[in-house]
Amino acid sequence: MSANTFGELFRVTTFGESHGAALGAIVDGCPPGLAVTEAMIQTYLDRRKPGSNRYTTQRREADAVKILSGVFEGKTTGTPIGLLIENTDQRSKDYSDIQDLFRPGHADYTYEHKYGHRDYRGGGRSSARETAMRVAAGAIAQAWLIEQGIEIRAAMVQMGNVRAEQLDWSVVRENDFFFPDPEKIVALDALIRDLKKEGDSIGARIRVEAIGLPPGLGEPVFDRLDADTAKALMSINAVKAVEIGAGFDVVEQRGSEHRDAMTPEGFLSNHAGGVLGGISTGQPLVAELALKPTSSIRIPGQTIDRFGKPQEVITKGRHDPCVGIRAVPIAEAMVALVVMDHMLRQRAQNGDVTTPTPILR
Amino acid sequence: MSANTFGELFRVTTFGESHGAALGAIVDGCPPGLAVTEAMIQTYLDRRKPGSNRYTTQRREADAVKILSGVFEGKTTGTPIGLLIENTDQRSKDYSDIQDLFRPGHADYTYEHKYGHRDYRGGGRSSARETAMRVAAGAIAQAWLIEQGIEIRAAMVQMGNVRAEQLDWSVVRENDFFFPDPEKIVALDALIRDLKKEGDSIGARIRVEAIGLPPGLGEPVFDRLDADTAKALMSINAVKAVEIGAGFDVVEQRGSEHRDAMTPEGFLSNHAGGVLGGISTGQPLVAELALKPTSSIRIPGQTIDRFGKPQEVITKGRHDPCVGIRAVPIAEAMVALVVMDHMLRQRAQNGDVTTPTPILR
Amino acid sequence: MSANTFGELFRVTTFGESHGAALGAIVDGCPPGLAVTEAMIQTYLDRRKPGSNRYTTQRREADAVKILSGVFEGKTTGTPIGLLIENTDQRSKDYSDIQDLFRPGHADYTYEHKYGHRDYRGGGRSSARETAMRVAAGAIAQAWLIEQGIEIRAAMVQMGNVRAEQLDWSVVRENDFFFPDPEKIVALDALIRDLKKEGDSIGARIRVEAIGLPPGLGEPVFDRLDADTAKALMSINAVKAVEIGAGFDVVEQRGSEHRDAMTPEGFLSNHAGGVLGGISTGQPLVAELALKPTSSIRIPGQTIDRFGKPQEVITKGRHDPCVGIRAVPIAEAMVALVVMDHMLRQRAQNGDVTTPTPILR
Amino acid sequence: MSANTFGELFRVTTFGESHGAALGAIVDGCPPGLAVTEAMIQTYLDRRKPGSNRYTTQRREADAVKILSGVFEGKTTGTPIGLLIENTDQRSKDYSDIQDLFRPGHADYTYEHKYGHRDYRGGGRSSARETAMRVAAGAIAQAWLIEQGIEIRAAMVQMGNVRAEQLDWSVVRENDFFFPDPEKIVALDALIRDLKKEGDSIGARIRVEAIGLPPGLGEPVFDRLDADTAKALMSINAVKAVEIGAGFDVVEQRGSEHRDAMTPEGFLSNHAGGVLGGISTGQPLVAELALKPTSSIRIPGQTIDRFGKPQEVITKGRHDPCVGIRAVPIAEAMVALVVMDHMLRQRAQNGDVTTPTPILR
Repeated sequence: MSANTFGELFRVTTFGESHGAALGAIVDGCPPGLAVTEAMIQTYLDRRKPGSNRYTTQRREADAVKILSGVFEGKTTGTPIGLLIENTDQRSKDYSDIQDLFRPGHADYTYEHKYGHRDYRGGGRSSARETAMRVAAGAIAQAWLIEQGIEIRAAMVQMGNVRAEQLDWSVVRENDFFFPDPEKIVALDALIRDLKKEGDSIGARIRVEAIGLPPGLGEPVFDRLDADTAKALMSINAVKAVEIGAGFDVVEQRGSEHRDAMTPEGFLSNHAGGVLGGISTGQPLVAELALKPTSSIRIPGQTIDRFGKPQEVITKGRHDPCVGIRAVPIAEAMVALVVMDHMLRQRAQNGDVTTPTPILR
Repeated sequence: MSANTFGELFRVTTFGESHGAALGAIVDGCPPGLAVTEAMIQTYLDRRKPGSNRYTTQRREADAVKILSGVFEGKTTGTPIGLLIENTDQRSKDYSDIQDLFRPGHADYTYEHKYGHRDYRGGGRSSARETAMRVAAGAIAQAWLIEQGIEIRAAMVQMGNVRAEQLDWSVVRENDFFFPDPEKIVALDALIRDLKKEGDSIGARIRVEAIGLPPGLGEPVFDRLDADTAKALMSINAVKAVEIGAGFDVVEQRGSEHRDAMTPEGFLSNHAGGVLGGISTGQPLVAELALKPTSSIRIPGQTIDRFGKPQEVITKGRHDPCVGIRAVPIAEAMVALVVMDHMLRQRAQNGDVTTPTPILR
Repeated sequence: MSANTFGELFRVTTFGESHGAALGAIVDGCPPGLAVTEAMIQTYLDRRKPGSNRYTTQRREADAVKILSGVFEGKTTGTPIGLLIENTDQRSKDYSDIQDLFRPGHADYTYEHKYGHRDYRGGGRSSARETAMRVAAGAIAQAWLIEQGIEIRAAMVQMGNVRAEQLDWSVVRENDFFFPDPEKIVALDALIRDLKKEGDSIGARIRVEAIGLPPGLGEPVFDRLDADTAKALMSINAVKAVEIGAGFDVVEQRGSEHRDAMTPEGFLSNHAGGVLGGISTGQPLVAELALKPTSSIRIPGQTIDRFGKPQEVITKGRHDPCVGIRAVPIAEAMVALVVMDHMLRQRAQNGDVTTPTPILR
Repeated sequence: MSANTFGELFRVTTFGESHGAALGAIVDGCPPGLAVTEAMIQTYLDRRKPGSNRYTTQRREADAVKILSGVFEGKTTGTPIGLLIENTDQRSKDYSDIQDLFRPGHADYTYEHKYGHRDYRGGGRSSARETAMRVAAGAIAQAWLIEQGIEIRAAMVQMGNVRAEQLDWSVVRENDFFFPDPEKIVALDALIRDLKKEGDSIGARIRVEAIGLPPGLGEPVFDRLDADTAKALMSINAVKAVEIGAGFDVVEQRGSEHRDAMTPEGFLSNHAGGVLGGISTGQPLVAELALKPTSSIRIPGQTIDRFGKPQEVITKGRHDPCVGIRAVPIAEAMVALVVMDHMLRQRAQNGDVTTPTPILR
């Protein structure tokens, strides 16, 4: 059972609670000889870090990652890579107000039933703080994928009713929203300001792509590339929906419209999102996901406590009006883990992922 | 690696090609003492069987399942259950026309790259025929779940632009569309007739629910109940999108609107779709999925062959205008597999899935 | 959980009871393009088949294997290979005499406690008949290994107090004992005759070797090549001990005696049995195992029934005086599964098992 | 793939090199509510710690374990338990003398072939130092097992030619050899002194028992209790052989002698070592293992370097003349991991490991 482990051949196992001593991960199955440094991983972590962005939570964590094993003289050795981030800004504040309370929209109620005993401080294990280790592990996967000519990229393409009308990847890393439409930045900024004023929050839609995949990745019939991608993305905190390619639009499409015609020069469209029969076509793998608005808001809500009594809840602390923003690097990381895992699986099968040569190009 | 295996504790491994000798499955991890018969499994299989429904393909397969092991004197023994369906209607027709052709929207092209050598007859392993074994295995899971007071149910809620406006579960099994809105049957029938005339196909949206779950099912942080459900549903042939609860609607929701308030009498809404932090709340687990229109249509399409040369493709044989219809029992089966697996996992953790007693009711 | 599955990348899942309808297996993860036929698998099965040998049980089973999927035009397709052997000689005899009895030395008592409900006929799932599917799966692994220049071979090196004093592999397949010392065949024959007269049974020691392994196979720290071999061999019915290389003799060895010196021409000895730190050295992998004498004997024994009452037990039917003989091809099969699995794992890591080139040769 | 992970439901994943920054482990699947403290784990660690015993290596490591997650207010929460031991005594000595050398009997040569790039300092990942995390994880398992009335215990029963002639468990923890025969302590002491003088080393035999198991633990046909025990023990550094119950003695036993008779009062013997058909009988699980003499000795040895040139090797540093001594707590830990895992697996199957009630007792 792999509750806290992701992947089959490139395996990431994480631990850590929001307000515990540290977060950590073991990355097992990384091929030897890959250049990996703390500084490289840190650049990925800094993109999701609380406090790095004026639109996200003001909790300030150094989130300084340490490599404890598996890297020698700057290169991986093929043995497990131990990663650690110590929690430095735990604010020894009093959590007794939520100790017995089930915050609506949070995992308090479900953890109580699953485990009976839980670390309620900041949500404990259910906190999105855990995703820092996914990003750290994803950074290692991305380092390897880049060597194989594969790029993983993500952008927030909608926040509330503000949708991107262009997909300009060159601007995504230049704005705090990871947004691909520079003309909408003002609207996004206004929306965040309004939400902060109201003490409310909003959902978001993220698009993530893997570019440069060889055809042939993915394992029918269960461990399909799209099925594993769906699990990977749905496992991110607050995600409620995942699409591949044309996604829900297929419901109203005709077969004659949906199927992507092939010519000697390549596919004429990509409604499939880069996957046919669960296996990569060589076109970009395209997925979109929806993140719910955080339930940690200043507007009072109706709930109960551990004794079944009605209570009112108000979240005071530091929280993002849109958790979707910080989910962009996390979505990238999760897709990187899936793609790397399937590259290794294909290598186990064929000895070489590039065999046979693609017919289309 | 579990390419053809689904589940951790209730494990289903399948084999078989569309036009091979037989389809089969091994169901491992079923608790002993469960009443299981071939007749019971057959009732589930008959619901997805080709030719059982005038709106679906006219290929006629008896799809008669045999239990080869693991059941003694009508009850499971806890040892692996071997299931077999022999392919009887393989039509020894000539498949040489598609031997070297990559049908657009099918897995021909991707299987060629993954494996180099493939059984092209009827799509081989990539055929939806494989899902018969999922339904058979799901039948066993459902037998066990029913004993625990859990019901899994699914319906097609949209086909093309015909949407269900009511969700009347009592009529779902009374019409050939598994549709919950009896007033739309005429429109569905008309749409299918039009598609047959045009030689085209259409997509569909399916809703699947698990009712009666105890709170506490699901494993953070990766093997969440919703993440495993997303993988299970996305692994069904032709599925391109999965939602839990409010799904993509969360993008435009406010936190104050989305979070489900709790009262001593229970939750006031179910935008979460029965899952918080990846763990069941005790409310119905609600998922929806989108199936693409089949690419096997009579309208000519542009493609290439194995030698990279342009070709025209027309599908002649027997095909469903809407593969989404037959996916209804498959979606049920996959959710049954996920829920049963998590019931056993919770039992491993706690020794009893009903511990502790739900606080809400 | 993989109770009935063996292997990580080359995965074998089996089902079937001694007196059920059939035995079967799914072999998942076999690379595509490997030549596999029923006839080839049958030659391996015939070596362990009951009734093929006048020293073993006279139960006559055709043990005719069918390939149901995963092989197309004589070559594997990379999809799961379904294997089936129907039980033809089930002798519908009356098993009511052992229905409530716990035969000493058998799994009746333990299955009763594990499962509560069991197929008692011929031992059900606990029967060594299940190993037929291991041999069938092992045949596929051996076909692949032979292509890589790897040979797996086994011999019975001791039965009772008759030990082989020479290891002449050329005679192993020429005698019914798989014995490597032709001068001991007469003694073995005499021992079997005595045992049959007495209605008793005897243990055996088997040696199994893998020749031609590249150095570098095996995964520290748990999935070592030797640890996986130990599990594989100990999982065979009746096995009570496993040694690698010098085995228990190391207890009295000095370090200066045990360590295998290395020279530019190669290792000077192989006390290690071909494994250092859990990883293959490139020398032969050498393991030995002990099989207990079967408990199915004509000499009356003391036992109890399901109601806790004392009973006497005598086995009448057809049984081998030495189950160790038939275990020879099974041991080969299990080592083949382990080696093939680790070859694929190494390929996943390095993309090529032969990288880097061995330094010694 | 689980190279550095052990267990299915109680999963232990470790990382760390001999001379890296730290050793660590993630223990996943521990039921919530178990009392666990650093002090409790430390008592187990102190038993295997270098320098704790005048007969073992004088390397002094505090081996102070920290719990980083998964325990809240002194009890496990069911979330993953992160464990860390920082390496404090890494002696920044010059390892350039072994950088290019393959020490005979060590994993240098095999790691070089497997990975190409390796941390050669002190053996890196292949060092037995890694087993500290197994002991730490085993301590948590033992805490849980004790609550279930199960005790795991181990003793060294032979070192070189000095064998225990009595098995007095009460003295095992009172001598530095974990030896159960107090009359042999003088001989053991003399042997160690001789070996130190000679600069040589010696092998050892360890016995480990699990007492108080319910009948019914273990999963046929591959994940048998004995097969998993064999793998667990063989995965310990330097182990070359494993026996269950009568072990290799079965080769010369008759069936009439080996089978353990049953009476209403219980079994009359335990040649089976507590396992029939891979499943526990309720009698003590008894295993023995052999550890080779360490290759790190002062007597010069013949070897080669990375360039294939002949070299002489002498180990200077701190090393145990008998690594078997410190393996006693490690063997206990590994059996604890196996038994706990199977307890959880049985719980998943039956909801309760004690169902049904043992018939014998």
